[in-house]
Amino acid sequence: MSKNTEMLSHEKVRLTEGFWKEKRELTRDVTLMSIYDRFTETGRFASLDFNHPDPHIFWDSDIAKWIEGAAYLLEDKRDERIEKLVDEAVEKIKLHQRPDGYFNIHFDTKEPAARFSRYTDHELYDLGHLTEAAVAYKRATGKRDLLDVCIRYIDLVDRVFRVEHSAAFDTPGHEEIELALYKMYRETGEEKYLTLMRYFIDTRGTSDKDKTYDVFGTNRYSQAHIPVREQTTAEGHSVRAMYLYCAMADLAREDGDEALRKACETLFENVVTRRMYVTGGIGSSHVGEAFTFDYDLMNRTAYAETCAALGLALFARRMWLIEPKGIYADIAELALYNGSLSGISLSGDSFFYENPLEIHTQVIKHNGLYTKARDSMPIAQRVKVFSCSCCPPNLLRVIASIGDFAFSEGSDTLYSNLFMGCEADTSFGRITEKTGYPYDGSVEYAMPDGAESFTLAVHIPAWAGSDYTLTLNGRLYEAVPRDGYVYITRAWEKDDILRLEMNMEARLVEANPAVHEDCGRVAVMRGPIVYCAEEVDNGRFVKDIAVSGERPFTAEWNDAMNLPVLRTTGSRRVWPDSNPLYSASRSRRRECGVTLIPYAAFANRGESDMAVWLLEER
Amino acid sequence: MSKNTEMLSHEKVRLTEGFWKEKRELTRDVTLMSIYDRFTETGRFASLDFNHPDPHIFWDSDIAKWIEGAAYLLEDKRDERIEKLVDEAVEKIKLHQRPDGYFNIHFDTKEPAARFSRYTDHELYDLGHLTEAAVAYKRATGKRDLLDVCIRYIDLVDRVFRVEHSAAFDTPGHEEIELALYKMYRETGEEKYLTLMRYFIDTRGTSDKDKTYDVFGTNRYSQAHIPVREQTTAEGHSVRAMYLYCAMADLAREDGDEALRKACETLFENVVTRRMYVTGGIGSSHVGEAFTFDYDLMNRTAYAETCAALGLALFARRMWLIEPKGIYADIAELALYNGSLSGISLSGDSFFYENPLEIHTQVIKHNGLYTKARDSMPIAQRVKVFSCSCCPPNLLRVIASIGDFAFSEGSDTLYSNLFMGCEADTSFGRITEKTGYPYDGSVEYAMPDGAESFTLAVHIPAWAGSDYTLTLNGRLYEAVPRDGYVYITRAWEKDDILRLEMNMEARLVEANPAVHEDCGRVAVMRGPIVYCAEEVDNGRFVKDIAVSGERPFTAEWNDAMNLPVLRTTGSRRVWPDSNPLYSASRSRRRECGVTLIPYAAFANRGESDMAVWLLEER
Repeated sequence: MSKNTEMLSHEKVRLTEGFWKEKRELTRDVTLMSIYDRFTETGRFASLDFNHPDPHIFWDSDIAKWIEGAAYLLEDKRDERIEKLVDEAVEKIKLHQRPDGYFNIHFDTKEPAARFSRYTDHELYDLGHLTEAAVAYKRATGKRDLLDVCIRYIDLVDRVFRVEHSAAFDTPGHEEIELALYKMYRETGEEKYLTLMRYFIDTRGTSDKDKTYDVFGTNRYSQAHIPVREQTTAEGHSVRAMYLYCAMADLAREDGDEALRKACETLFENVVTRRMYVTGGIGSSHVGEAFTFDYDLMNRTAYAETCAALGLALFARRMWLIEPKGIYADIAELALYNGSLSGISLSGDSFFYENPLEIHTQVIKHNGLYTKARDSMPIAQRVKVFSCSCCPPNLLRVIASIGDFAFSEGSDTLYSNLFMGCEADTSFGRITEKTGYPYDGSVEYAMPDGAESFTLAVHIPAWAGSDYTLTLNGRLYEAVPRDGYVYITRAWEKDDILRLEMNMEARLVEANPAVHEDCGRVAVMRGPIVYCAEEVDNGRFVKDIAVSGERPFTAEWNDAMNLPVLRTTGSRRVWPDSNPLYSASRSRRRECGVTLIPYAAFANRGESDMAVWLLEER
Repeated sequence: MSKNTEMLSHEKVRLTEGFWKEKRELTRDVTLMSIYDRFTETGRFASLDFNHPDPHIFWDSDIAKWIEGAAYLLEDKRDERIEKLVDEAVEKIKLHQRPDGYFNIHFDTKEPAARFSRYTDHELYDLGHLTEAAVAYKRATGKRDLLDVCIRYIDLVDRVFRVEHSAAFDTPGHEEIELALYKMYRETGEEKYLTLMRYFIDTRGTSDKDKTYDVFGTNRYSQAHIPVREQTTAEGHSVRAMYLYCAMADLAREDGDEALRKACETLFENVVTRRMYVTGGIGSSHVGEAFTFDYDLMNRTAYAETCAALGLALFARRMWLIEPKGIYADIAELALYNGSLSGISLSGDSFFYENPLEIHTQVIKHNGLYTKARDSMPIAQRVKVFSCSCCPPNLLRVIASIGDFAFSEGSDTLYSNLFMGCEADTSFGRITEKTGYPYDGSVEYAMPDGAESFTLAVHIPAWAGSDYTLTLNGRLYEAVPRDGYVYITRAWEKDDILRLEMNMEARLVEANPAVHEDCGRVAVMRGPIVYCAEEVDNGRFVKDIAVSGERPFTAEWNDAMNLPVLRTTGSRRVWPDSNPLYSASRSRRRECGVTLIPYAAFANRGESDMAVWLLEER
């Protein structure tokens, strides 16, 4: 393990075409101000005046993530109007920061004497997001007022928690500040941030003062049931877990901490081999928004919070810096393209918090007929804001900084992790990447001129298997991938073109038989994209549709949705005209056209039944 | 419509062999005293001393149903020990009956001033069950003390509700008294009971004073949302609904009330063609223990209360008195053999309240890990008593009086409805019925001697289709069934033997595609029995087992469980040794032995995953 592999920051990755450029422009054109307006309407920004009657304990983080997203969008194009909004917010934050450095909207508005008294509240989480925003805004604009606020606040936290132990708890009830402290350390070079980060990570799971929410019998909820290096299964609140694991991975790499690295690897493996939806969604239970047990992956009631899928991608991105293994990039792209982007509408202004893999609109409608819901059930249509609205600005900030996922750099190797059309200013020179990915399977790298010899390591997605070709300047290039990357070492020349061509045929994916309700069913994927069947395309009873791996699937561009739908011939039952509830006469299946759309695009055309897992014709 | 069709009461049907004789003997040998002991341990019987600190509002009904069950068992064999227990209870009831006739353990112990003040409580329901018990005990033993208690109490109810309208509500919040009043009318011949019954039925859904539980927004919960003759869909609490429909059917027949009959037919059809599990279970939602909407039949979270399936059988039995149609007997046997008997263990002393069609033990275990359950989930093993323990004594009384389901009589026709080994003293003489049903497909009727010519109408179960033969004295008898019965008119002679032989081959049943989660799956039935696959027989992943209608099923007697299991060859997936969570490599299916047991017998051999709906090999 060496820490000489570093992320190539999005600031050095200019998106030039294709999927992520479009998504990022949508966040700039629509999402940014839509979230700002909703946060204004709901009193979040006004709560910075510290006179709101009941500000939520996590409103600071909502504002912070919005600022962070805004900052990333300002990096390549300053915008006075946006900066004014940010600067106004920062002025208020400065104004209300306490002389000792403390700042929290809820506590200082409502119950200043209660600061740092409740493990279950979100002060350190809020500070973490504020810190991420501060670093981003300073890097984008050079303005450091918010950074200075955070520096003072973190000094207070360091004293209260690490030095004096005078708070009522020892570690954050909602992790986040740990990874933010690492960003501060990297931004400032100040060891004290690393020290505090290390303190929080090492102390987690060892303190009797850290008492969790009562929905869980144990501190599993906040991953504080045992010391982090001893944790082998992903437990509790899934977003908390991901943010902790991100920080653990950062620290493992920074410190060369083998025990911590091993824990990260074990936890990552547990998530992706036992507790993850095929969409990259995680945290299947609404109780505690939490991980449950192996293979417990109900579709209709899936919680699979948008923030958790984003968190998994962020964790995976840190893992590939520790060790370049294809599985990390595979999972990052799976979680981003499917279980994260399902959280935002194609219009860019509406959001899901929960991301079910099946919608039965009647069940959702029925739930509302009682004063007490029968089941906890995800909503069927995205909304513009939530009372707990963490997901929308999280999507904003991750999409706005998506370039972070493109490349990482070792001393002599440039790793291409997620494909995106961009110009990247790497340590090895400017590389131009052209691709229609994820809807198209070609990726072309135009290499820098005059670089010394270096290795380009290109991630070969696991979904592609061996069904891909690499050409260098038009000639087939043979290379055996190692752990999911092909390594091409060469004294590159300016006109060198490396081209990866992957077969984008649709494929059927099965789930482990331990996922009970997916038995007999298949998910259709094309490239990294999970598809689903919606009632709006296929009529009623989408769960009765069977597809076959023996029949062709054709991708067809849909202009209205700006994405490729898949068409195939499948079958469904011909049910007797008498429409019995049960029948011992064997029904026929008739052929039928089947239209599938990317899962992330579901619920964009009104309420509609939807299923990811379809029957399989055998 | 004529009311000259009457049930042949169980008192005239002596069970002589086979399934129901064994079940009834088990209730006598085990269930009766087991329930008594549990009700004693839990303070129910002691609460008759009116000094219990917190008697439930429905404990009267628990005791009453136990007395009713005891009475039926005493009919053919008096038992001093049991009668002493009943008489002790009745003495206490007499002692505590108020001078004006009122009697209720909860209200008179805890809040006598609150009598008849809450629609949502169970006074009239309690009185209904007490009345059923009183009639049964008087008929079995001649002792009429309890009957006299009920007569006085009903007189009070008649005055308060029908005459003075002085109660805080107008109709029972939980129906039951209506059908009990009909029993009183039939037992005593007193019109006043019919008048009060008619009043409650006619008033239901018309009163502003009847306010339902707040779990429902409307009075649908207690079928009081609209007048009963206007109701077309089964709504609300399923047991309440069944007891109401029973009384409606009684009254429709008694009064020749065409509108009421039509409502009963429509409601029956709605239940059995839209809202019933393949086991005859009804009321799929734990919220309100209620009907929901068409085709909403989730397996794992099925509520399907034992009492509701029993109630459906009781409703069906009344419907065939209005009009002899095979569907009523089909549904009665389906609900009894499957969704009702699943409520009692093979040992006779443990009970399910909820009867799911799928058990995933890990999910149930997981639910208990949190202080708040993720889902409302049926338990995986039967227990000896519940805090709301309506189902155990309900099974007791229905099994003890199962003979009620055997025959009904018109002026010149004897209807054989459910098959059971018995000697029946009919209006047409003594008939002997021999059968190994439901595990064997032959039924033999030895006819009475010297009777005048009469018609024997034999129910041909719908499941048998046309795959049966009738022989009279060994010679094939051709008869075209009409509405599910074959009619054989003859001057019967003593040695006449009519024999029905039905094909008992297993068959696969499909559910309507609108039942989303059963798509691609089949249930296996043999005769009226629904089968299921348990982990204890089939290993893990029972939901991955596929069966085929093309392969033979063989029935094999299992001595330990005293029932026939089914064996067939099916298939299941061979999952890669690497045990991935998801795989795009198509798994093979390998042949495997599959063992199925009657659904009603599930969960008798320890905790085990279970599924009714299996994959289908096509």
